[in-house]
Amino acid sequence: MITSTSNPQVKQLQALQKKAKERECEDVFVVEGIKMYREVPKDKLVYTYVSESFRKKNPSIFNSVEKLTELSDRVFESVSDTKTPQGVLCLVRRNHYTLQDLIGENRLGPGHHGAAALEPMSGETIGRGEPLIAILENLQDPGNLGTIMRTAEGAGVTGILMSQDCVDLYNPKVIRSTMGSIYRIPFYYSQDWERDLNWLKQQGVRLYAAHLEGKTYYDKVSYCAPTAFLIGNESRGLTQETAALADAYIQIPMCGQVESLNAAIAASILMYEANRQRRSMSV
Amino acid sequence: MITSTSNPQVKQLQALQKKAKERECEDVFVVEGIKMYREVPKDKLVYTYVSESFRKKNPSIFNSVEKLTELSDRVFESVSDTKTPQGVLCLVRRNHYTLQDLIGENRLGPGHHGAAALEPMSGETIGRGEPLIAILENLQDPGNLGTIMRTAEGAGVTGILMSQDCVDLYNPKVIRSTMGSIYRIPFYYSQDWERDLNWLKQQGVRLYAAHLEGKTYYDKVSYCAPTAFLIGNESRGLTQETAALADAYIQIPMCGQVESLNAAIAASILMYEANRQRRSMSV
Repeated sequence: MITSTSNPQVKQLQALQKKAKERECEDVFVVEGIKMYREVPKDKLVYTYVSESFRKKNPSIFNSVEKLTELSDRVFESVSDTKTPQGVLCLVRRNHYTLQDLIGENRLGPGHHGAAALEPMSGETIGRGEPLIAILENLQDPGNLGTIMRTAEGAGVTGILMSQDCVDLYNPKVIRSTMGSIYRIPFYYSQDWERDLNWLKQQGVRLYAAHLEGKTYYDKVSYCAPTAFLIGNESRGLTQETAALADAYIQIPMCGQVESLNAAIAASILMYEANRQRRSMSV
Repeated sequence: MITSTSNPQVKQLQALQKKAKERECEDVFVVEGIKMYREVPKDKLVYTYVSESFRKKNPSIFNSVEKLTELSDRVFESVSDTKTPQGVLCLVRRNHYTLQDLIGENRLGPGHHGAAALEPMSGETIGRGEPLIAILENLQDPGNLGTIMRTAEGAGVTGILMSQDCVDLYNPKVIRSTMGSIYRIPFYYSQDWERDLNWLKQQGVRLYAAHLEGKTYYDKVSYCAPTAFLIGNESRGLTQETAALADAYIQIPMCGQVESLNAAIAASILMYEANRQRRSMSV
């Protein structure tokens, strides 16, 4: 058991929690909490850290865990990103997706659904999922990014494309907000924004920009064909350059004096409208 | 100009930022930032505080403000709830709504829309808003509550009912997340939960519980009649007692391995589905 915060392993963990660069060099991210720990894909689990008191209370969980280090409660607190740590965290190997992965083609074999395709509820028939992509430009709030990823999985999104200047997806607060969707939804940080958006268009994906100048209400458009939603920065929205690449502008109508919706809320309303339409189509 | 953090006015401001009890006794709440400051209803503005440097940069804003105190930048930082304060905050008198106000009847005179009724977009005809209510039980996250209020105004919600154990609506983080909707949306902390929910039912409002056991998809139900959505706590959902009072359970379908959506996201999807249906109905 490690009882000193000056232990090199502890120092390394603290760096992984705080520094995006460090996480990138090690090709891992840090996951905290028992719920998300249980959902880590087995082949991706690199190393587990557990606090003394959590292990005592839950001895059976860690019986078959090979790479495991126990930390005193005080040391665990020093490496945790949360105020009241549960007492378990782990390092997880990153997935490396390609742009191609976002449209789901690699994941849809003949005659079965891909992981993120629409899943039928008891007895209901639902068609195979066409590409449904969330494209995020310069999103800055970690909670928003994580929440969008969580809702995206729920809505049957096939992938998430992010501009380079989005907040780091492996930021501990983002990871927490994904509630595990980070293990399952393909995502990609664009190296060349214009090229990548044009590539999607060449694949037949229509790009819809959530834009205050949109003259068409979002629910008057069909998203049953391959669709992507462009979501902009929390305060400034989409850049002109990005908006210009969209096939169409859409608007979420707003009553009262509301000028805009929170970015994660707007993205969720759009993704679930696509989900609703695709279910209605195939029933 | 106040230059000392031990000034009694400064001490009082700090208490108002941190303590719900203090805010309640004074019947005010604290608003920070220039955007929300500009939107304060004039008859509700109690007192304005501005930092030395902000006033220097924006002298014209405060010309006609009567009750105003200038604080040195250092003192302003000590009373601000944000990491990088803009330099303006104010005390705002509270609104006191009744349960009746939530259903909008008091606000709808003959022949015109109430403040939160659906507003027509260029040329489109939209019918008067039937009651549309968000009912929140034991919501704990300030960001969620504020975001729900902001989206509620956008969706044309007529009022928000909260259980006593919800997070304090006047918490600075909630206020910020409302982006000004707190000035405009009627809300009410229930004194007697069961009685109040039953009262709404007696007024003809149908109560829909967003519930994992719901067998009906949320978008297969009509919300054109008076409607309320019951939204539960972030981790535990609705209590059994509250769910039992619902007229029907509804479910937001989820693909992949998602077990639930964030409370603000779920509430927003439901409120905007009602908005969508009511627009479709009247076009």
